[in-house]
Formats: sequence, structure tokens, C-alpha cells
Amino acid sequence: MPLGEFDLIGRYFTRPARRAVLGVGDDCALLAPTVGMQLAVSCDMLVQGRHFLPNVAPQSLGHKALAVNLSDLAACGAQPLAFMLALALPRADEAWLTDFSRGLFTLADAHGCELIGGDTTQGPLNICISVFGDVPNGRVLLRSAARAGDDLYVSGTLGDARLALESVRGAVALQRDAFEAVRVAMEQPQPRVSLGLALRGVASSAIDVSDGMLGDLGHVLQSSHVGATLDVDAVPRSAVLAAQQLTWQLQCTLAGGDDYELLFTAPPSLAAAVHAAAEQARVAVTRIGGIDAQPGLRLIDAAGQAVPNTYGSFDHFCS
Amino acid sequence: MPLGEFDLIGRYFTRPARRAVLGVGDDCALLAPTVGMQLAVSCDMLVQGRHFLPNVAPQSLGHKALAVNLSDLAACGAQPLAFMLALALPRADEAWLTDFSRGLFTLADAHGCELIGGDTTQGPLNICISVFGDVPNGRVLLRSAARAGDDLYVSGTLGDARLALESVRGAVALQRDAFEAVRVAMEQPQPRVSLGLALRGVASSAIDVSDGMLGDLGHVLQSSHVGATLDVDAVPRSAVLAAQQLTWQLQCTLAGGDDYELLFTAPPSLAAAVHAAAEQARVAVTRIGGIDAQPGLRLIDAAGQAVPNTYGSFDHFCS
Repeated sequence: MPLGEFDLIGRYFTRPARRAVLGVGDDCALLAPTVGMQLAVSCDMLVQGRHFLPNVAPQSLGHKALAVNLSDLAACGAQPLAFMLALALPRADEAWLTDFSRGLFTLADAHGCELIGGDTTQGPLNICISVFGDVPNGRVLLRSAARAGDDLYVSGTLGDARLALESVRGAVALQRDAFEAVRVAMEQPQPRVSLGLALRGVASSAIDVSDGMLGDLGHVLQSSHVGATLDVDAVPRSAVLAAQQLTWQLQCTLAGGDDYELLFTAPPSLAAAVHAAAEQARVAVTRIGGIDAQPGLRLIDAAGQAVPNTYGSFDHFCS
Repeated sequence: MPLGEFDLIGRYFTRPARRAVLGVGDDCALLAPTVGMQLAVSCDMLVQGRHFLPNVAPQSLGHKALAVNLSDLAACGAQPLAFMLALALPRADEAWLTDFSRGLFTLADAHGCELIGGDTTQGPLNICISVFGDVPNGRVLLRSAARAGDDLYVSGTLGDARLALESVRGAVALQRDAFEAVRVAMEQPQPRVSLGLALRGVASSAIDVSDGMLGDLGHVLQSSHVGATLDVDAVPRSAVLAAQQLTWQLQCTLAGGDDYELLFTAPPSLAAAVHAAAEQARVAVTRIGGIDAQPGLRLIDAAGQAVPNTYGSFDHFCS
């Protein structure tokens, strides 16, 4: 007998509500907002071939589908509370569901983020998660508040996910252990939730790096009406990526996509607070440039020489 | 030059935030909850071939994608506030986007429900909407609160959407004007938001009829730990459906799916209040049975004779 929609939800995606007033199982879920807090909401849809490879382990996919959403909360300095999962599946495959839900809930539990509702249907594989977090009134981190004179920072390292993808595509040859190292970045990104929380009141602006760093930085510059100068050699990269040709290093770090690190700005007077936040969150942060009053983005190398910007950002309809 | 993801969002899906603190354009949107209110949230994913036909007009699809979500808010007695749209499209087709967004926003505006965020990507057509509404603390309408002795009601008429689908499938032959009449029910359902609001404090339980009435009633009975007796002849149906064979009438009204009417219960002492709520919301409501202490569902006809229940509910993985 095939597994029905309600059995599937009951078996894999229903847990008792903890913080939510009402969880999975009614027409709506109910959240009781905390006085003095605003609710941050975001959603991301993952499609096979665009956001993950057909052969990805379902457990990694469950992790990544939630991770990319938690990354949006992190970029706003919001504390994760809850999420909804909408899932289109070609068929109700119990082995797949077991592994997918394990990856999903392991990450959810690590962030105290509970599943409160969703939808399942038959169709081409598609995973759409909506997340809810809260942030004290007026303390949200926005893209639009970078100011001239601010330092520009990025967390962790950039480019490994893209390097892994290029290896799968056959464009780059990697040894097995090198591939396994960067594959983790592609399949199991770690959302920088703790760093986002620690940067409240410290960072002037933040965004998560999802479509390629220069493109994401462009959104910050455009909405903040400022420009920036960025040292391409200062952009942090893993040892595996640093061992590749320089053109690949630049392509992957500047326009890789799928990094889920935080790109943020802060005034120089708060540099010590930035590093304290990084230490508290146990994530490296690196200063990679500065915000200018003059619009536009200027790339330089470690010697201060101009570098031409030939790095396109990832676009789901043009790439 | 192809339309890029951010152009697409900017052109078709960005409007200034009205009620939301922060709308489309950052990593998250921000909602400022009202003191004394809880937030009702729900999401539904629509897939071609499962929830709509390939040849449906994009404007109708935009309407329906939001309507099915507003129907969930209606079933909880929640006032719509905002929604997020995640959209996978095979390609960025501007004519399609123009019509789809027109249908979407026409319904959204009619309910004061604003678009605050979302995601777009390339992929097999998939529409996932998350809705947000609010409801005063403790006033939500639940599936789980039907009580023995309550009357059982349904709004509007049931079965037209299924009749239209069976006509498209060739199982039922309809004249052109008859088909056009029931096609509206299939393609442009009207969420019963006003009725849901008017039933707060009146109905003891409510659910929206989306997977077939008997199946949805089953959810109410199961979560309320009660049974019901239902008069199949009392279930309201359109003139078009009433002109079909009785077996089609019963199949479509009892297990049709895609109705988006409200099925609700209320104590007999509040019958006048039920009818006042219906009048206020300008929707017909019909008493179709009653809730029993004895578990299980008993179908009877107008003469009180038992009718066998052979009507399966719609299941996305088994149908």
C-alpha cells in the first residue's frame, strides 16, 4: 500500500509543538509574538539541477534546504524560531524521507528552530522552506545601512562550494580528499546564525553571500547608496582553493555562489567589537575592504593595483 | 537580453511595503506583531498537473495560488496580513508574468494582503505561497474543538471544481455554458475570509474543504474525538451539478476536492449567530448534519436511510 500524504506528514514531519502555540496539523500554525520583538520571515525554494545535484545525499539536502533559509535570518541578526516545509516529491520514498528528515531536523534542533507546518505533494522534486525568527525592535541588520568609511568584512572562507561544483562539472581536477573537503561546503553549508546575533548593534549592514560575493555586495552598495573598494587578495579562501590557479581562486571567491557566509560592514571604531563577535560565534571574520562615498565597486590587489571586474554574479534565469 | 531574476522580482513582484515594517528586497521581511494578537501562518505548494491544468490562464493561476492559502487563514478565523511567493518557472516569460501577477495582486488587494518577500528560480513550474494573518489571542478556529451535539455546516456549494475537472478529463459531458460556470469554481475559488472572521466566537471548529469534504470532515472528527451524522442530500450543490447523475453529484460534493468552502460546527444555541455571520459575509451556509459523541461517520439520505460511504478522499501520493 503506498504511503499517503497524511501518513507521510505524520511519520516524517510531525513533532509536538514546543514554542509555537499550534504546530503541524491544523489549517494554520500559530505563533505568539514576544512583546518588543519583530518577526523576520524569509523563504527559499530549492530545485534539482539549480541548487543541488541529482545524486546529493538526501540527508545533506535536508540540511542545505534549511541552512540557506537560516542564513537569511542570520543576515538580519534574527534568532530562528520556526519553519514551514513545502515539499514536492516524485514519489513517497521512505528511505529518502528518513534521510532527508534526519538532515533537516538535526540542523533545526541545533538552532532551536521547530517545524510548525507545511505541505506535501506529488511532483518534480522541489523543496520550499519558510523560516521565522525574531529580532528586537529596531535591531535588525539591513542591507541598506552601510556608510562611507565603514570597514567591509566577510565571515569564514568563500569559494569552496563553487570549486566543488566546477570539479563535478569536470572544469577543475581535484584529488579525492581535496574534493571531499570542498564538497562539504557545497552540500552542508553552516548558516552563521550565532555571528548574526553577535553582530546586532555592531555591524552597520549585513547580507548573506548566496549568489556570488560581488553580486551580493552590489545589493548592499545599491541599497545603501555607497561604493566600495575591495582587496581581492584579502578575500579568505581555503587551502584547497588557494592551491588552484589564481583565476579559479578569484572566480570562486568573488562570484562563486552558494557560500552562505555573512558579508557585513562596521565602522572602524567598532573593529574590536567585530572581532569579539567573531570570537563569541567561533567564526573567523576578515576585513576585505572599505565602503566609499563614491558609488561603484573598485577591485584592487594586495599591492593596491586596480583589478578589472569581469566576474558575473549568478542569476537563476541567465546563468 | 533575457530577463534576470532580480529584474523579474523588481518588475513583477515588488511594491512598497504598507503595513509590514520591511517588505521585498532584503534577506528577510519584517512584521511587527500587534499586542494581543497571534500570528497564523500556512503554506501551500501548487504543481502543474496536480493542482492546475497546463492550459490554465496565468491570471487564474495567480488568483488560485493565493486563494488556496487565504482559505487556510479563513478556516482559522485569521485576518490576512501578508504573503511570500516562491516561484519556479521554466523561463522568464513576460506575458505569463504580467497575467499571473495581475491575478495574484487583484485577489491580494481585495483582502489587504501584501507581498513581503519570496524567491524565484528556474525549474519546473511550481508555486509556493506562505501566508500570514492575525487572530486575537485564544480566538483561533481549530479543527479539534467540535463537540457532540453541534450542528455541522458548510458554506457555498460543493463539487463544481471536481465536475469541471471530470469534464476536462472527458468523464462527464457538459454543455459549453455549464462548463464555463463550473470552471470558475475550479480556476478561481473565492476564499471565505469574511465568513471565517464572522465565525470567530460562533463556530466551535472549522476546516477548509480542499481534499474532499468527507476526508476533511474526517480530520475534524479525528482531532475532536467525536463522530458525525451527515445528510448527503442536504449538501449544497450548484444547478449545473444538480442536473448530473446522482452518483456524480455525490462523488463531487462528498469527495470532490478543491472546493475551498468552510466546513464548520456550532452549537444549536448559536444557530441564529451562524446565519447572521453568513449574512454579514454574504455567503450561504447550510446545515448538513450534526456531531455525535459516538466516533465514526454515518451518512444518511433525506429520508434518514443509511448511505454506504464509498467516497475516497483525494491524496496527492495515492490518487
